[in-house]
Amino acid sequence: MIPVGEAMEKLFSLVEPVEIEQIDLADACGRVLAEPVAARRDQPPFPASSMDGYAIKAVEAMRDAQFRVVGESAAGRRFEGRVGPGQAVRIFTGAPVPEGADHVVIQEDVRRDGALISLLDEPGDKDNIRPAGTDFRVGATLEAPRRLGPSDIALLAAMNIPLVPVRRQPEIALISTGDELVQPGEDPGPDQIMVSNTYGLKAMLDLAGASVRMLPIARDTAASLRTAFELARGADLVVTIGGASVGDYDLVGDVAAELGMEQSFYKVAMRPGKPLMAGHISGSAMVGLPGNPVSALVCGEVFLRPMLNKMLGLGASAPARLQAPLSQPLLANGPREHYMRATLDAAGIHAFDRQDSSLLSVLTKANALLVRPPHDSAREVGEMVDYIPL
Amino acid sequence: MIPVGEAMEKLFSLVEPVEIEQIDLADACGRVLAEPVAARRDQPPFPASSMDGYAIKAVEAMRDAQFRVVGESAAGRRFEGRVGPGQAVRIFTGAPVPEGADHVVIQEDVRRDGALISLLDEPGDKDNIRPAGTDFRVGATLEAPRRLGPSDIALLAAMNIPLVPVRRQPEIALISTGDELVQPGEDPGPDQIMVSNTYGLKAMLDLAGASVRMLPIARDTAASLRTAFELARGADLVVTIGGASVGDYDLVGDVAAELGMEQSFYKVAMRPGKPLMAGHISGSAMVGLPGNPVSALVCGEVFLRPMLNKMLGLGASAPARLQAPLSQPLLANGPREHYMRATLDAAGIHAFDRQDSSLLSVLTKANALLVRPPHDSAREVGEMVDYIPL
Repeated sequence: MIPVGEAMEKLFSLVEPVEIEQIDLADACGRVLAEPVAARRDQPPFPASSMDGYAIKAVEAMRDAQFRVVGESAAGRRFEGRVGPGQAVRIFTGAPVPEGADHVVIQEDVRRDGALISLLDEPGDKDNIRPAGTDFRVGATLEAPRRLGPSDIALLAAMNIPLVPVRRQPEIALISTGDELVQPGEDPGPDQIMVSNTYGLKAMLDLAGASVRMLPIARDTAASLRTAFELARGADLVVTIGGASVGDYDLVGDVAAELGMEQSFYKVAMRPGKPLMAGHISGSAMVGLPGNPVSALVCGEVFLRPMLNKMLGLGASAPARLQAPLSQPLLANGPREHYMRATLDAAGIHAFDRQDSSLLSVLTKANALLVRPPHDSAREVGEMVDYIPL
Repeated sequence: MIPVGEAMEKLFSLVEPVEIEQIDLADACGRVLAEPVAARRDQPPFPASSMDGYAIKAVEAMRDAQFRVVGESAAGRRFEGRVGPGQAVRIFTGAPVPEGADHVVIQEDVRRDGALISLLDEPGDKDNIRPAGTDFRVGATLEAPRRLGPSDIALLAAMNIPLVPVRRQPEIALISTGDELVQPGEDPGPDQIMVSNTYGLKAMLDLAGASVRMLPIARDTAASLRTAFELARGADLVVTIGGASVGDYDLVGDVAAELGMEQSFYKVAMRPGKPLMAGHISGSAMVGLPGNPVSALVCGEVFLRPMLNKMLGLGASAPARLQAPLSQPLLANGPREHYMRATLDAAGIHAFDRQDSSLLSVLTKANALLVRPPHDSAREVGEMVDYIPL
């Protein structure tokens, strides 16, 4: 058994960032920007009014001053002339400020009388003009790597970037193994249970940016496993779930070895989820997760999501850990790093009493994994502990 | 102008939860569960071994005791007989514990010699058996409403729920208005800018669970706006962006009124994003947002996302506010509630110096909206303020 940190390093060494592809901006939210992109124009591209009002010369702006309105500048249709002394141009929010003008008086501060306006007040400090490039200049970049959110998408649109260079979605093939498993919707025999871990992992990894294929359940025969690995061919990462322990029916390691897997390691000193192996097989990275659904999902958070992030060009880093005070005491920990299902609230963090790795009903109530180092001593209420938010 | 809270109430009154549909479990992550669903079976459905080992009678478990191995219970294929005195059954993790046995000794604590095993140690406290229903009993429910995450999906799979009752995705139609706008990828004239607010809003609302249609840009003519409203027909919510101010070219209100809109309110006392109107039009809820991209996106967070949540059956609540200490002082606020673009880090929260509502480059750096009540006095470093995480 190797420590979690060492396992993480070996897992990172199995994967590399995937290729870059150009996709439509409208589809890019949630994707990972792969290269810096540069604005193709200034925003605004011209000095723009930030108010509805009248564009005049600032030196003429004073209470009771009068101006003749000589034209209009609307968003999309500027006033083509020049504003001379004693002249004003009707202007709307976002419209180009005409040549010769360097101040916009807001319409509430003006009395209009036919083609004449007069100012009702002293002008304020603000000129109500956004200079060209106020938001960004041509060539200004949005840096990469970066997972694109809604405001990034709006910024890229404003920069006139219709196609965005992103990492393609890494392909992950999921193989659940076991004679006891049936698909939801089927009628299980008395000895059977529903497959659940691939459903949870697919949801998790799709959300995190992968393209996940759920393969048919592999039976506990070498032939069935070989077929499953064949179907997984071409994936960036093949994940088996179950069948990686030492029971007589745990065939995954044997079949993978027969298919040429170079095993990177076997078993990690963690709870839940001891059985975990990894290596390369037929050009894909391969990870074998334990079959208990909670173990599989915790391993997904702790190992698969960081591997996926590396494939997406986001670097190789273990899940970020935060700290919170304990709201209930903890007993001493054993020799394995323990990822306890926990609840974080205003009072602090506390682990659930029931930590058995078969309890999905507990995992769905958890909003954090409380992380305990190997051989951690007993902890009192108020002591700070590490956690990974879920 | 009405206060933000009042606007929020009126906006909630415009929408109702949408219909429930049944979808495949594999597609349900991120969707909102609409009704409680009940487990169709116990999990595990039988007493199951939590270890690889040997099933025996607990009363016989003691150091050096010997047993004859009379069969095998594997996951998916139980031992059909009964374990008698002096007998053991080879058993694997997840397999049914046979009749007559009530203890599993783990294989590491056993020496095997042909068909005989002997115990190397005193048995521990644990029987290594998960009773039937340890995770959940038939009829146990996952409660609604609930936005389904990966572990919920795994739990529903384990409960044998292949079809999940969720709210359908509310349809939202987005209409950007303005002669100055062109689509990313087009070649803008000197007076034109790229449309960006619909791109950002589509990304935000898709992520939050809507099905968003971006309609063609409406020009500043009544005919063009009428066409856009026509294209939006059937949507649950129609959102116009821009054209809702009082400029001569702000036609949205006029055209909406002509099409029979019952106006619920007009203008909200907030920054950014003053122009905001709402009502009903042709059977759809309708909201008019300001055109500045930051205003539009902030209004999306503050108003549209909560409306969407109500349509999804998640109840009518304003965005949750958290509190953090200021890491930089703030000047006094004016008469309008201010949603300042801000950064939250270990030192606390601070608002960006530049708060102009045209600055997408600032919004993309923000991870919080710092909320200031109307007429809030100046605030010092260390004072607690409200924020909405982004």
